[in-house]
Amino acid sequence: MKEMKKSSVLIAGGGNTYTPAIIKMLMANLDRFPIRKLKLYDIDKERQDIVANAARIIVKEEAPEIEFLATTDPEEAYTDVDIVMAHIRVGGLPMRRLDEKIPLKYGLVGQETCGPGGIAYGMRSIGGMLDNIDYMTKYSPNAWMLNYSNPASIVAEACRVLRPTARVINICDMPIGLEDRMSKMVGLKSRYELVVRYFGLNHFGWYTSITDKEGNDLLPAIKAYIAEHGYVVDENEYTFDNRASWKVTHLKARDLQRIEPDFVTNTYLKYYLFPDDEVAHANPEYTRADEVIDGREKSVFGACREIAAKGTARDSLIRNDNHATFIVDLAHALINNTKERMLLIVENKGAIENFDSDAMVEIPCLVGSDGPEPLSIGKIPTFQKGLMEEQVAVEKLVVEAWATHSYQKLWQALTLSKTVPSAGVAKKVLDDLIEANREYWPELR
Amino acid sequence: MKEMKKSSVLIAGGGNTYTPAIIKMLMANLDRFPIRKLKLYDIDKERQDIVANAARIIVKEEAPEIEFLATTDPEEAYTDVDIVMAHIRVGGLPMRRLDEKIPLKYGLVGQETCGPGGIAYGMRSIGGMLDNIDYMTKYSPNAWMLNYSNPASIVAEACRVLRPTARVINICDMPIGLEDRMSKMVGLKSRYELVVRYFGLNHFGWYTSITDKEGNDLLPAIKAYIAEHGYVVDENEYTFDNRASWKVTHLKARDLQRIEPDFVTNTYLKYYLFPDDEVAHANPEYTRADEVIDGREKSVFGACREIAAKGTARDSLIRNDNHATFIVDLAHALINNTKERMLLIVENKGAIENFDSDAMVEIPCLVGSDGPEPLSIGKIPTFQKGLMEEQVAVEKLVVEAWATHSYQKLWQALTLSKTVPSAGVAKKVLDDLIEANREYWPELR
Repeated sequence: MKEMKKSSVLIAGGGNTYTPAIIKMLMANLDRFPIRKLKLYDIDKERQDIVANAARIIVKEEAPEIEFLATTDPEEAYTDVDIVMAHIRVGGLPMRRLDEKIPLKYGLVGQETCGPGGIAYGMRSIGGMLDNIDYMTKYSPNAWMLNYSNPASIVAEACRVLRPTARVINICDMPIGLEDRMSKMVGLKSRYELVVRYFGLNHFGWYTSITDKEGNDLLPAIKAYIAEHGYVVDENEYTFDNRASWKVTHLKARDLQRIEPDFVTNTYLKYYLFPDDEVAHANPEYTRADEVIDGREKSVFGACREIAAKGTARDSLIRNDNHATFIVDLAHALINNTKERMLLIVENKGAIENFDSDAMVEIPCLVGSDGPEPLSIGKIPTFQKGLMEEQVAVEKLVVEAWATHSYQKLWQALTLSKTVPSAGVAKKVLDDLIEANREYWPELR
Repeated sequence: MKEMKKSSVLIAGGGNTYTPAIIKMLMANLDRFPIRKLKLYDIDKERQDIVANAARIIVKEEAPEIEFLATTDPEEAYTDVDIVMAHIRVGGLPMRRLDEKIPLKYGLVGQETCGPGGIAYGMRSIGGMLDNIDYMTKYSPNAWMLNYSNPASIVAEACRVLRPTARVINICDMPIGLEDRMSKMVGLKSRYELVVRYFGLNHFGWYTSITDKEGNDLLPAIKAYIAEHGYVVDENEYTFDNRASWKVTHLKARDLQRIEPDFVTNTYLKYYLFPDDEVAHANPEYTRADEVIDGREKSVFGACREIAAKGTARDSLIRNDNHATFIVDLAHALINNTKERMLLIVENKGAIENFDSDAMVEIPCLVGSDGPEPLSIGKIPTFQKGLMEEQVAVEKLVVEAWATHSYQKLWQALTLSKTVPSAGVAKKVLDDLIEANREYWPELR
């Protein structure tokens, strides 16, 4: 067996709370995805330093041969890179908090990627993503960017329209998380034992087929499990890091199953189909952003500081995020042409036969060194098509609004969203969001 | 000039309150659309008799050579017919009242053709329409049915799916009414002096071009007028027949103009874009159905009874409904191959390039003896596409639900509707509507 190519990897969004676990995961996967250089890049030096001071020690202890670097300089970051792993969050968690709280003021779903919050976040993210893409194109034109920055659907649409030839692959960990749960429901070891068919937009889709590697149909058993327990497979997992709100989400899958009993539905559909229940259970004073700040951010940054103080990561609580192996699967597939089957966010181009050809859809693809080859999906049912067409139009209008600085288009985007009850309410939320995002959005006319 | 062919005309829905005015209009247009036989058909003998007793006198006084007949027997009605004018209302105004009031109980728009009320009405209408189409196909296979029964969009979709080869042309008077108003806004005599381009679904569309016969652009002037006055062109027209609620609708066009300043919007979009305002101004105890029963129905039926009592229509208040001349325009075009340009509801088949090819859309067509030739529209903008795709999916799901007796599909239809805030609310409204419509809907499983 010939020696595998060693990659230079850049993590864009070095100060992200997920970065330490991803680095642990990369260290655990060096046998199939060898790394020669690992760099962190962020525009927020302070946050990145917290992570970098720990990461440097982790890398030194686990793979001292890897050159490690953290920088806020784009040229230094993007020069000599093979794979960019992008998980940026423009405006950080404080702006996420506003994305969630402003809609709630008007009785609307306050959520990171869905509805008005997702639209606001999208308007912030597009510019940051394009900057990163342009750095990559300039300094490492042959690199691939694996983008899992949220809101992935709007970011992916912006890439399609504004950087159509960029080597960006948009992927989301949400299906991975659901598939991990499904494998447990049917007594399999991991999601790697499942073969799925799925269609939708990002955070907006349906599993139409789930089998094991031998082709045995697992869909009926999984649907029966979800009808009773939702996606809850371990009652204990919700006790750490303020994850209680996830249990509500996982249980809500029971209701999603009722309105679409033929397929298995992505949990994010609850924001579009049961927004009233969401709002009724939300605390406008303490949202998911607060949970993350008080939970994951505190525990991860605390652990990073401890590593830096002790000078070792050997007893650290920073765990290898197993779930994040999808990023290595993707990088590995690109570098080694494995034709791995993965759900990616790609331009439809007829894969979903009766759906907007120009839309970014989430469907199974085979990944090789030339990028993704989407599988053909055929026709989708009327209910799903209607929901998806509405939602994809929202996402396109956001990108149109960003690109043309159009107040009108953004008002239309909010009005069209399934989570917003009227053009009148849309305008009020919009005006609040503009005020809150002055620093981050283009000025709208 | 050769003598024009004389037609045998059947009005299906003989007891409709619009029937007397349509008969007056037919009498006034005999020069271009000569009639040899005029029949009324209804399943409600009592209502039809009120109209027929007056209609017989009107016809006798204005065109004694025309053979007149009113019947509840389908064979008698549909034998030897050239043109069927269908405006049936299954369940009548008492069921319309429930269509409006049940949604309002849940804070939703209560409207004849939009949202849950329109869906309920659609579920009642499909069976009645198919019966009439089948009678025509059986007894007068070469006849044309000009269908303006509501809810036209759902009825048209049912025709497309369930009677694809039937000779039915679906048309709505709504654009006619708007165009009459537009012609007044710019000082022209009538809508016949306008040439328009328009796209959408029935009760759900936008004018993209309005010129006079010389090609002068009237769109800017009409948009400016609407921005200030809405569609209100005569303050006095709202005083008779309980038409006050129409003034609210006509003024609301100002807000529709704000969210879509490029085009001129059909007033029905207010139910989808500003449902909260609609609900806020609605009186759940007295809706439009009550207005019609107390207004138009009372005055029309009163006038009919007076004609019958006096034995003459000479001083009657029944007026020739000028606005209804579109029906004669259509019949005339079909019989005499005039290639008249009209807005019709036809299968898209690519006319709107970036829209569901299988959808029934409302677009300009040229009408000749082979039926409509749709004009090609090209691409439509994102906002309109998103709204239309959602709405057309609702309409398709209603037809699927009717055809397969599916509770699930109808729940999905209601959930998908822009006027319904969640799947939970959709289910409650659905269960109420099922209860109210037991006599008219197929039994859902």
